Amino acid sequence: MMNQEQKADVCRRLKKIEGQIRGIVKMIEDDRYCVDVLSQTRAISSAIRSVENLVMKQHLQTCVKHSMQSNDIDDQNEKIAEIMELFSKFRKG
Amino acid sequence: MMNQEQKADVCRRLKKIEGQIRGIVKMIEDDRYCVDVLSQTRAISSAIRSVENLVMKQHLQTCVKHSMQSNDIDDQNEKIAEIMELFSKFRKG
Amino acid sequence: MMNQEQKADVCRRLKKIEGQIRGIVKMIEDDRYCVDVLSQTRAISSAIRSVENLVMKQHLQTCVKHSMQSNDIDDQNEKIAEIMELFSKFRKG
Amino acid sequence: MMNQEQKADVCRRLKKIEGQIRGIVKMIEDDRYCVDVLSQTRAISSAIRSVENLVMKQHLQTCVKHSMQSNDIDDQNEKIAEIMELFSKFRKG
Repeated sequence: MMNQEQKADVCRRLKKIEGQIRGIVKMIEDDRYCVDVLSQTRAISSAIRSVENLVMKQHLQTCVKHSMQSNDIDDQNEKIAEIMELFSKFRKG
Repeated sequence: MMNQEQKADVCRRLKKIEGQIRGIVKMIEDDRYCVDVLSQTRAISSAIRSVENLVMKQHLQTCVKHSMQSNDIDDQNEKIAEIMELFSKFRKG
Repeated sequence: MMNQEQKADVCRRLKKIEGQIRGIVKMIEDDRYCVDVLSQTRAISSAIRSVENLVMKQHLQTCVKHSMQSNDIDDQNEKIAEIMELFSKFRKG
Repeated sequence: MMNQEQKADVCRRLKKIEGQIRGIVKMIEDDRYCVDVLSQTRAISSAIRSVENLVMKQHLQTCVKHSMQSNDIDDQNEKIAEIMELFSKFRKG
């Protein structure tokens, strides 16, 4: 679905997040102030949201667009139901 | 875009929300406990989210589906860009 | 809990939101484009969040601060449990 | 701030999240379906939120409670301002 460049970008972001999580483990072990820890976890949630936006964008621009241009109405209905579910679920957290 | 029944459903929900907001104004005027006020505002946010899910569902099942089944690639690209923006913006609040 | 000025500010904001909801009912009745409707509901959610931030701020600066300065440990525990619940619930939507 | 047991619990959760992120990198490399990838990122966001709730709980039950029981009004004001900021910021994402 994603081309090599897009996959490399998403993986690079995920590996950075992995490093940030290890940083938080260290903050906990070092008894760092809770509010500073929360500031870091918030940065991670924000980074994950960026990854999700990228993946969603690729999904729309490849799978969904391809489905649009096919004449497969069942597949189109399925894609629409999936987007609806993503929209609804992602806002609930 | 929405049929009469769907429009009536969404409007009925919005009018209920309007009533709930008037209820909160009264709670404030009556010096009700802040935590109870926040519980009511949260119910309103949840009701608005339900309205948004309904409107989004109609949007996907009418405008977007119609665009999918047309051969208008510019319109399809526009619809995809809009969904992407909605997905991204709605999660930022 | 809130003084007259704070209550007036919150009520003024709520009445503005009430007007915005009536505006959305009209948009639905006029068959306005779904994405424009969603843009308005998002503005309302954002306005409600501002009201909640104001109410929470008053709660912290009056009820919680007062509890802090009392020696009533049961009340302090209750206030802390309430803040925890608000923090957790409000992020779930 | 946190005792050994609480720190161990939070670190165990963070390490599990680290593993989940490595799992997503693998899903991307294996060209797994975007919607399944998004389902996993959502699980991670939810796990991070649980960690944040735990850290916030400890913060309230130790730092904030301790501040409450002191007579240091400056420190109490600072704690209240911090909670207000956390409440507001965490809801913006």
